[in-house]
Formats: sequence, C-alpha cells, structure tokens
Amino acid sequence: MQESSPSSAPPLHPDVVHLAFLLGHWVGGGSGHYPTIDDFEYREQVWFEHVGKPFLSYRQGTRDATSGIPLHAESGYLRPVGSHHVELVVAQPSGIVELHDGSVDGTSLRLRSTSVLTTATAKDVTIVERAIDVDNGVLAYDLSMAAVGLELQHHLSAELARQ
Amino acid sequence: MQESSPSSAPPLHPDVVHLAFLLGHWVGGGSGHYPTIDDFEYREQVWFEHVGKPFLSYRQGTRDATSGIPLHAESGYLRPVGSHHVELVVAQPSGIVELHDGSVDGTSLRLRSTSVLTTATAKDVTIVERAIDVDNGVLAYDLSMAAVGLELQHHLSAELARQ
Repeated sequence: MQESSPSSAPPLHPDVVHLAFLLGHWVGGGSGHYPTIDDFEYREQVWFEHVGKPFLSYRQGTRDATSGIPLHAESGYLRPVGSHHVELVVAQPSGIVELHDGSVDGTSLRLRSTSVLTTATAKDVTIVERAIDVDNGVLAYDLSMAAVGLELQHHLSAELARQ
Repeated sequence: MQESSPSSAPPLHPDVVHLAFLLGHWVGGGSGHYPTIDDFEYREQVWFEHVGKPFLSYRQGTRDATSGIPLHAESGYLRPVGSHHVELVVAQPSGIVELHDGSVDGTSLRLRSTSVLTTATAKDVTIVERAIDVDNGVLAYDLSMAAVGLELQHHLSAELARQ
C-alpha cells in the first residue's frame, strides 16, 4: 500500500527508474487564473509514490493561500511506455477524469489530454495540457485548460519543494 | 489535505452527511475471477476520507493474499447529487478511468459506469458495475465488469472491517 513504511518499501520497478525524479512529497504554492473566475493563490501538496510496480501514483491537494480552505484535489497514475513516452490517468472531485499522452525528456514531462470526460453535473472541460519540470529539488508545473467553451489557455502554475 | 490530523479535521459537509457510513480506513480481503485469468485471493485496504467539501475521496490497494505482492490500486471521488443519487470518478494504474452514476439507499450504493475510457496501452474494459454495502461495521462490495470482449459478469467481491 502507499502507507508502507520506508523500511518495507519495495525496490523501484525498472520501468519507472527514469521517473524517480518525481518521487516524494512536494509542498509549495501557485497561482491560478481563468477568464470566468477571479485570480487566486494557493498552497499545494503533491505526492508521487510507488509500490514496486511499473507506475507511479500521483495525488495532490490545494488550499486557498489566505483562508486555508481546501480548493482542488486530484489523484491518478503515471504509466511509462518505454523511456520517452508516458500515459497519465487522473480523477478529480469536480467530476472530471483525464487521460493523457505525453513525453519524458530528462526531468521534464509534457502531457496533453487525449480524452477529458465529465459527469453529468460537472463543468465542461475539453482539453488539458500539463507541463512538469523538476530542477534542483523544485517541481514546477504549468497547466492549461480549455473549459466552459473557451479555448485552451493558461490556468495554473506552481512551484513545490521536495520535503 | 487528506493527511490532516483528526484534531484539524473540518466538519463534514452537509451534502455528504448521508454518506458518512463509508468514511474510514477499511481492511479485509476478497476474491476475484474472470474467464481469462486464474482465480485469485487478495488482501485489501480502502480509505474513504473528506476535507469538509461536498465529496468523499476514495482510494484502495490490494495485495496477493499469499505473496503480498501489490495487485490493484485505484483512486477517485464520490460526488453526491442530492440524497439518493451519486456520481463516482475513478482512475486506475492499469490505464483505466471510470465515470459512474448510481443510487444511495440507506447504507447501500449501486453504481454503473456511464463511461469507461482506457489509454492506448491498457486492456479494454467497457462496463463496470459496483455494489457497496455497509452493515455492522463491515463494508462488502461486488464488482462486475465487461472486459476484453466478454459480457458483463462478476469479477470481484470482498469484505472489509473498519479499523
């Protein structure tokens, strides 16, 4: 399970060794904007974990930087396909699931949704792009989104430090 | 975040009070079968958690009952729509995402997928049905699946106790 203590952690599966730069618990903050909402600042925690199998689990949660109220959360899995290609599946409490195809180049991931599906009561999201870069112990990401009838555009960026 | 200590746990959102019977950390075991694979027994942990917002987070992991090797994992969110209707979004490391619509009747959930999507390298799954019942501190579930060209049929059943 994800709750395994470090002493019982299995060795990393060979297929995900090149993704080890993502592993860990990351804490930081970011900012978001979109034409239909007010700009906002948030605090964030991200976990990339493994259980010895050929994928990484991913989950995160954000809170309003001022009030501490929970904002967003999501969880999913990163699946390497060879050394330079990767798939990502993500579920969100807003009723959205994303499937992504992407590339891995060193410590940079570039992902674009192949499908975004929403439940009947969720807001309409059609395209999501995610860029993730790790450098010097800092994970930076940028997320663009086409939602509620608008074209693909920048929505979120954040920087997090490994704990 | 999900890691909040109990002392800082926010009150349950009014929209999910009727789903509180699911909350907690559940541990138990189950068995699986499908025409294309050998029958198997597994140990499982399930977490239903909340952060004070109108959804529950859900994640689980299973291990082979004999070897302890991790088998399956999944994570997602349960979204009530009123008192008797619910949506579920789930992502799986096997490259599958599910969207479900379902009903809540007392401490019983009946869910059927409205969409199942798979990444390019995942096995083909087309329909999933999930039944979850909580009674006397025991969470029992049954999962049926139409996969790899076969019709919808029983795949998994398990019983877990709240820790």
